[in-house]
Amino acid sequence: MKIKYELLKTDKNARRGIIYTNHGKVETPMFMPVGTLANVKMLTPEELKEVGSGIILSNTYHLWLRPGEDIVKKAGGLHKFMHYDGPILTDSGGFQVFSLAKNKKKDITEEGVHFKSHIDGQKLFLTPELSMEIQNKLDSDIAMSFDECIPYPATYEYTKNSTERTLRWAKRGKDAFKNDQQSLFGIVQGGAYADLRKYSALETVKLGFDGYAIGGTSVGEDKETMYQMVDDAVKYLPVDKPRYLMGVGEPEDLLEGISRGIDMFDCVLPTRLARHANAFTENGKINLKNAKYKEDFTPISSDCDCYTCRHYTKAYLRHLFVAKEALGGRLLSIHNIRFLIKMMEEAREAITNGNFEEYKASFLKKYKN
Amino acid sequence: MKIKYELLKTDKNARRGIIYTNHGKVETPMFMPVGTLANVKMLTPEELKEVGSGIILSNTYHLWLRPGEDIVKKAGGLHKFMHYDGPILTDSGGFQVFSLAKNKKKDITEEGVHFKSHIDGQKLFLTPELSMEIQNKLDSDIAMSFDECIPYPATYEYTKNSTERTLRWAKRGKDAFKNDQQSLFGIVQGGAYADLRKYSALETVKLGFDGYAIGGTSVGEDKETMYQMVDDAVKYLPVDKPRYLMGVGEPEDLLEGISRGIDMFDCVLPTRLARHANAFTENGKINLKNAKYKEDFTPISSDCDCYTCRHYTKAYLRHLFVAKEALGGRLLSIHNIRFLIKMMEEAREAITNGNFEEYKASFLKKYKN
Repeated sequence: MKIKYELLKTDKNARRGIIYTNHGKVETPMFMPVGTLANVKMLTPEELKEVGSGIILSNTYHLWLRPGEDIVKKAGGLHKFMHYDGPILTDSGGFQVFSLAKNKKKDITEEGVHFKSHIDGQKLFLTPELSMEIQNKLDSDIAMSFDECIPYPATYEYTKNSTERTLRWAKRGKDAFKNDQQSLFGIVQGGAYADLRKYSALETVKLGFDGYAIGGTSVGEDKETMYQMVDDAVKYLPVDKPRYLMGVGEPEDLLEGISRGIDMFDCVLPTRLARHANAFTENGKINLKNAKYKEDFTPISSDCDCYTCRHYTKAYLRHLFVAKEALGGRLLSIHNIRFLIKMMEEAREAITNGNFEEYKASFLKKYKN
Repeated sequence: MKIKYELLKTDKNARRGIIYTNHGKVETPMFMPVGTLANVKMLTPEELKEVGSGIILSNTYHLWLRPGEDIVKKAGGLHKFMHYDGPILTDSGGFQVFSLAKNKKKDITEEGVHFKSHIDGQKLFLTPELSMEIQNKLDSDIAMSFDECIPYPATYEYTKNSTERTLRWAKRGKDAFKNDQQSLFGIVQGGAYADLRKYSALETVKLGFDGYAIGGTSVGEDKETMYQMVDDAVKYLPVDKPRYLMGVGEPEDLLEGISRGIDMFDCVLPTRLARHANAFTENGKINLKNAKYKEDFTPISSDCDCYTCRHYTKAYLRHLFVAKEALGGRLLSIHNIRFLIKMMEEAREAITNGNFEEYKASFLKKYKN
């Protein structure tokens, strides 16, 4: 079946809901950990469940190159391949074309995008139809439309042309889509131009998707501009479908997104930070390599219920990072993902209680970036 | 309390027994995974328990340099520091002086060994007394005497002088030992000379330790020579104390060791192999990066009960290794350690049934190195 979204409660623009999928239901707002290459770096599916992960995200572009979608299909789809029986969302490859193409060179045509592999420079050509074919084979629960991620800043003319082409690509992708057990989300582009965001949102909704994402964010713009991009798009999205803000993972951005009516977020931030010894705490990020933690025999956060905080001290984690032991990154990934997911749990609770803005304000008062 | 060894059953020279420690009892023969820097690379204590690890080994030399024994002591000892409540054995640093000293340069005096740190070249001086002091602070269940690991080959004269000095160091270490909750093992040296092995064994036993190790093996000698070294030492060791063959982890060597009356083994092999995609199987080692596993949707071993074999295919593991995802090394470490520990379980069972030699022969018939 396609996913279903149920709106449970609103608190001003903030929404609490449930997404029903073929692999279980998940509560929103939620944060999706990123499992680029069919694994969330260093973690097992059991660990992801333990921290309360709802949906995880995996990358079409990366899986297309390695191991190849046909191998994943032969394995029985991505869930079986990676031993994850919860819901999975795959992106379309559009963002990786933008961020990873070798030397950032690409040739965008009406048909699709010519670019070179970030691994070996091999020539690649990705089209809306191919992105759907790959995602259909990966058999994720939610596939994403193929779009151009517009750089920031970009001229009005460039943004308009690109946004219109992304709409044509969305239509082509939808027409080519062949997996009736999989849902497909549209992506709103439009850059930093309010009228183009509105146009993109309305036209994408007209095409009709199972959910809607706001793309082209987290590409170098300042935070106020990003929040404005969200505001300019979200008000034209239907209330009965989930809304997903792509590539956003900073705690304050999650809260600002929820305030504006966003239901889903994803970002590599918690795991990437973890591999560099950076830990989320209620008071902001800390770096565990800091000498002041040498003899700190307390957990990262005494309020945290994660496996790492229940069993390990900052002194031990610091030792692992200083000695370059990979277990450090593993343990801290658990904590950082849990931190964001716990935030989401608290946000949902606050929405139910009708005091989300108070929760947000009290969180941000303590949290110093 | 000091450890206690109970001999349950012999089958020719092979022995089945139990070691009672302050952190639980463990059955022998057993294989000890190596947790060099207060962690078995990438694995949690819970995972080590799940694969059936009895004792784990940690390295005094490495913990002396990072994080330093005083920090471990302040944390409440090594068990608390690393969140491992099973038994831990620490080596003495003698082997690392041999294998890791910067440029392999060292100056061995009667007092101790002058050498340089493998990390930053800092001048270091390790003595029997200091090794005991560090290990007493680490508070492992079993500490090892400080010895010189004699290279192979070595002249008779060098070997004799070194073996005699190691005996004097063993005595000094024992006299300096201050932790009455910790056991201390002696180490038999003597190189490849039968009379020196006999001399070293008898004199070490005269000093009186809680267990006895055979050292100076796995230093470049051929297998027949190593087995001879064991034979030349083991017959002079008391039956009521555990016997430990240091640094040995190849399946055939474990079986040959058990045949000769060894109870304990340790080696970095299963985890090091795992990080390089090499897996133990009943038929010998395989490398999971091999293209022939690209579409092999079967586990590493259908007979294996480990977490990895229960949930993941060779095709998935190959993908992780090819894409350089650390989860591959983690999952394979679990399998490789389990493989050796399962061998030990089977060996114990065979000893109980009085058919260890048959078990060994049938294992080695299938296992091709």
